[in-house]
Amino acid sequence: MNKKLLLISNSTNAGEAYLGWPREAIRSFVKSNNIHKVLFIPYAGVGITYDEYTSKVNSVFTELGCSIYGIHNEIDPVKAVNEAEAIAVGGGNTFHLVYMLHKLKIMDAIKNMALKGTPYMGWSAGSNVACPSLKTTNDMPIIEPESFNCTGLIPFQINPHYLDANPEGHGGETREQRIEEFMQVNKDIYVVGLREATYLLVEGNSISLYGKRPMRIFKYEQTAYEIQAGENIDFLLK
Amino acid sequence: MNKKLLLISNSTNAGEAYLGWPREAIRSFVKSNNIHKVLFIPYAGVGITYDEYTSKVNSVFTELGCSIYGIHNEIDPVKAVNEAEAIAVGGGNTFHLVYMLHKLKIMDAIKNMALKGTPYMGWSAGSNVACPSLKTTNDMPIIEPESFNCTGLIPFQINPHYLDANPEGHGGETREQRIEEFMQVNKDIYVVGLREATYLLVEGNSISLYGKRPMRIFKYEQTAYEIQAGENIDFLLK
Repeated sequence: MNKKLLLISNSTNAGEAYLGWPREAIRSFVKSNNIHKVLFIPYAGVGITYDEYTSKVNSVFTELGCSIYGIHNEIDPVKAVNEAEAIAVGGGNTFHLVYMLHKLKIMDAIKNMALKGTPYMGWSAGSNVACPSLKTTNDMPIIEPESFNCTGLIPFQINPHYLDANPEGHGGETREQRIEEFMQVNKDIYVVGLREATYLLVEGNSISLYGKRPMRIFKYEQTAYEIQAGENIDFLLK
Repeated sequence: MNKKLLLISNSTNAGEAYLGWPREAIRSFVKSNNIHKVLFIPYAGVGITYDEYTSKVNSVFTELGCSIYGIHNEIDPVKAVNEAEAIAVGGGNTFHLVYMLHKLKIMDAIKNMALKGTPYMGWSAGSNVACPSLKTTNDMPIIEPESFNCTGLIPFQINPHYLDANPEGHGGETREQRIEEFMQVNKDIYVVGLREATYLLVEGNSISLYGKRPMRIFKYEQTAYEIQAGENIDFLLK
């Protein structure tokens, strides 16, 4: 297995430019993998046309010496995935994204090609799709997908945009409480709380955290703990 | 149709006793409907046993002159629903609740009995189950239900624990943005943002908002707006 995955918590920090903070990470990923043309999957986008979304992402990738083409303009999406030089899956609503990936039968194609070494980039919902399922998304279930199953390119679950506290005075569950609920019914799987402005890089059997904040590791009946960038976290891939 | 529904945004305000703020609303509902024994549905509870959850709720209802018995101890749950004097559905994880209601084949039984006049009380996840689907829950999809469909006792969607802002500096979607995404793919249905410490009371074809905060009404291509307690909102039932 020669997987190359760039899994980004969030596209944009509050108040910054679109794909601002992760731009250097994307630049380095496309350069080191010698990527020139990227198949973009815009199906997490809701309330924006797929053309608009693709064009927005293209303007960022052009600056990095790459061009983007949207899968929604391809006649045969499975063939498009199979022939892609690299794949990028944008953020938005995870349920809508997973609904479309199943509907178009490209979930497995993405999995197979990424396992064979096609570089995969995802942010937010796009990172969730690299997990075994969508079960740790923060998104609203606005549409019912055929299944919650995703690609399982990594064997653990990411909770993107991981957040420590609720707004003051709010009685709803905190993110940690939600993840604890997940673990009660999914006891054998790690969950990684990936804070904004951080990302994971997977190369074969090696995985690393980057960014200025630690990430939080959850497992059933273990005390949650923090991991800093630079620590060895390859156990997550086992 | 002689529906009697008490739909509560949240069980507990931050820092208060369990079912503290809505206690008088529940007292009034059980009194006016002459309820003495309530079938409790604890399946939104995760990380708490159903016995513990039932006992916690029972201690509140006992104070109101009512007793509670849990459906998880009934041999035939459909029969239990059909014979219940009143039904209460507690909060927790909506996906887990809906998973169990479908698995035990009681979603339709609850719907049928509530349509015939069996008083229905729900809070948080229990209010979501009165909607056509779970699609406006805030909960994490920790388990995949057979279907997103719910009872449709009301024809609109509730977003419980409705919240106006994100914690400062967080780049994730606001609640309003999430509901806008819902409307993009569900154009014909109202969504009601039900803030904490508020509830809806449905009696036949009449519905009223109670509590100290306004609720927010959303519909595709309409500007969202606020409704105060006391305003006529019967259009929501049409």
